[in-house]
Amino acid sequence: MSDLPVVGMVGGGQLARMTHQAAIALGVPLRVLADRHDDSAARVAPEVEIGAADDMTALTRFAKACDVLTFDHEHVPPDHLRALLKDGIAVRPGPGALLHAQDKLVQRRRLSELGIAVPTFAPVSTPDDVARFGSEHGWPVVLKAVRGGYDGRGVWMLDEPPSELPAGLRDVPLYVEARVPIVHELAVQVARRPSGERRAWSVVETVQSDGICVEVIAPAPRTSPALAAEAEGIAMRLAEELDVTGLLAVELFEAPGGLLVNELAMRPHNSGHWSMNGARTSQFEQHLRAVLDWPLGDTSTVAPVTVMVNLLGGEHTDLTATLPAALEAVPEAHVHLYGKSPRPGRKLGHVNVVGTDLVEARARAREAVRLLRGDADD
Amino acid sequence: MSDLPVVGMVGGGQLARMTHQAAIALGVPLRVLADRHDDSAARVAPEVEIGAADDMTALTRFAKACDVLTFDHEHVPPDHLRALLKDGIAVRPGPGALLHAQDKLVQRRRLSELGIAVPTFAPVSTPDDVARFGSEHGWPVVLKAVRGGYDGRGVWMLDEPPSELPAGLRDVPLYVEARVPIVHELAVQVARRPSGERRAWSVVETVQSDGICVEVIAPAPRTSPALAAEAEGIAMRLAEELDVTGLLAVELFEAPGGLLVNELAMRPHNSGHWSMNGARTSQFEQHLRAVLDWPLGDTSTVAPVTVMVNLLGGEHTDLTATLPAALEAVPEAHVHLYGKSPRPGRKLGHVNVVGTDLVEARARAREAVRLLRGDADD
Repeated sequence: MSDLPVVGMVGGGQLARMTHQAAIALGVPLRVLADRHDDSAARVAPEVEIGAADDMTALTRFAKACDVLTFDHEHVPPDHLRALLKDGIAVRPGPGALLHAQDKLVQRRRLSELGIAVPTFAPVSTPDDVARFGSEHGWPVVLKAVRGGYDGRGVWMLDEPPSELPAGLRDVPLYVEARVPIVHELAVQVARRPSGERRAWSVVETVQSDGICVEVIAPAPRTSPALAAEAEGIAMRLAEELDVTGLLAVELFEAPGGLLVNELAMRPHNSGHWSMNGARTSQFEQHLRAVLDWPLGDTSTVAPVTVMVNLLGGEHTDLTATLPAALEAVPEAHVHLYGKSPRPGRKLGHVNVVGTDLVEARARAREAVRLLRGDADD
Repeated sequence: MSDLPVVGMVGGGQLARMTHQAAIALGVPLRVLADRHDDSAARVAPEVEIGAADDMTALTRFAKACDVLTFDHEHVPPDHLRALLKDGIAVRPGPGALLHAQDKLVQRRRLSELGIAVPTFAPVSTPDDVARFGSEHGWPVVLKAVRGGYDGRGVWMLDEPPSELPAGLRDVPLYVEARVPIVHELAVQVARRPSGERRAWSVVETVQSDGICVEVIAPAPRTSPALAAEAEGIAMRLAEELDVTGLLAVELFEAPGGLLVNELAMRPHNSGHWSMNGARTSQFEQHLRAVLDWPLGDTSTVAPVTVMVNLLGGEHTDLTATLPAALEAVPEAHVHLYGKSPRPGRKLGHVNVVGTDLVEARARAREAVRLLRGDADD
């Protein structure tokens, strides 16, 4: 079995942790480059190297011991990736593709060129630039960091011309975009292997709170088949056009005027956690298969509905007490914990409930998460 | 998260490996006592200690670093377990329960006392004892080692009085039993926690070849509901009567005269591998929940039929080549590999196919395994 290729994952977060579960089933050795020994994945995998994702020396040493390099986040500098590629390392996704998930301005421009709708946008660097955009396209506007934002970080909503740029958004490249009247938020995941095979999962609806994904419903229950097919088409096309290898998650706004692409990620993604129990092939197994250029698995659903609810730490979260209580109350819950110390607002895990009735499945998944958080009854 | 209790598993085989996958989801730290660094579980878990399961020093050191001790095999001497228990270690299942899975004569006698049918049996130590049993109960008879047999090892079928005992069965405690005319072979798994809660999965049909389980069909397709309920009742009762903590697998013969218990195992078991994809809670997660005295999970099936086919190494098994071929041909297969070097006859993994039609699911699972083995078309 030592013959099966070694996959190296840069980053030791929960995505790497759950990828390790899938790697165990496939018999694939997974190596992890983690920041710290107590990172989520470093707690459960035997082959862990400690090093920073932006340290070229650490990255090179790590990559040389792997057959394929892939990522649990987007924070590896593109120059480093290009150097590794030149060095003969199989980097999947490649730096050219990954740039569209790292640099939102590159992404917005490329999608516009491809004729794929995105919110109206413009690069900005001063309060005046923002004011000009707002007066032209209307208020409110959304000011975003070009790089590094996620889970609502690096995003500012502005109702009127700002007198100065918000703290934290000075000295970084910025862009501004029109605020889209959102009907629903959707996401689609596609896997693509280097040889070209692609498979998409069902389009899902994502529910955000304060810019953080809190729930995912698969398949998207309120989206017409035609619009779902359009969303899937966009994701399938983007995987090809951007030459993605591995997983691509496309987050979309369903707006009155149609679909607009919001974000891209090229790795397993929170919007795909439902697939661990709700699809024949999970996103984590599929990512491994795709980056290894192995045939992709069946992405069909195993039940009419799967609801994923994120567990964010609460004020009183103490899993030693709350986990048994949640297991007791919701015996059908699929609980996935990330091995992190609880802290308010921190993503500690998620719960999937697979069922036939959306209202019921959602209520049960929410109940399990409420109990895991240790919130008082409300 | 470091607060969640640490489970120690004695034995580093595939059962420990798959338990680690479940432990990752629950956020439970799993420690493994393995014979070797390249044992199936030792390849994928970070907290591995190397030591023999019958070495009291190794066992004690290992157990002291765990909150609960459990097992992936039955080869820990009962005296050692009693000593650990005396030392305050939570040993689950306890030595008193486990003895019924370690010593078949103890098991046969206890089950007879409980009024649960087993094949007619007698302890023997000489060829004359065997001849006497055969002349009284008819030929053929089955000669078995009281301890240590599995996968057909330690079992001899005799058609006539033997002139001498078979090599390998001298100097070990033996018993003989009547050969049962088997209609089907069944298995039932029950989990029981120390506080008493029990949950059973569907009764399954197991298919053996040369004494080794090759296929499992869940639920048992050719067994009447009444007989399945009887089998479940036997397993539920045994879990209670024997004070099992963790998982109990009961293998049964469905014979013309009714059900007879064949074997007991007190750990995750090959007959329950289907539950990884076919049930809401897998046997591995349930075992952890049970030994931790946590509420048990929902054991209901997720689909009308699940077929599990074991992958035994063939003459030409080379997973580097055969795994992609199998994934390509059967994209809906759930492949579970154990990280072992292929050898003819060695259990290397299994495939689950979940579906609605037994004939189809079975054909697909068999096809995936045929391709994984690398057998020529037949």
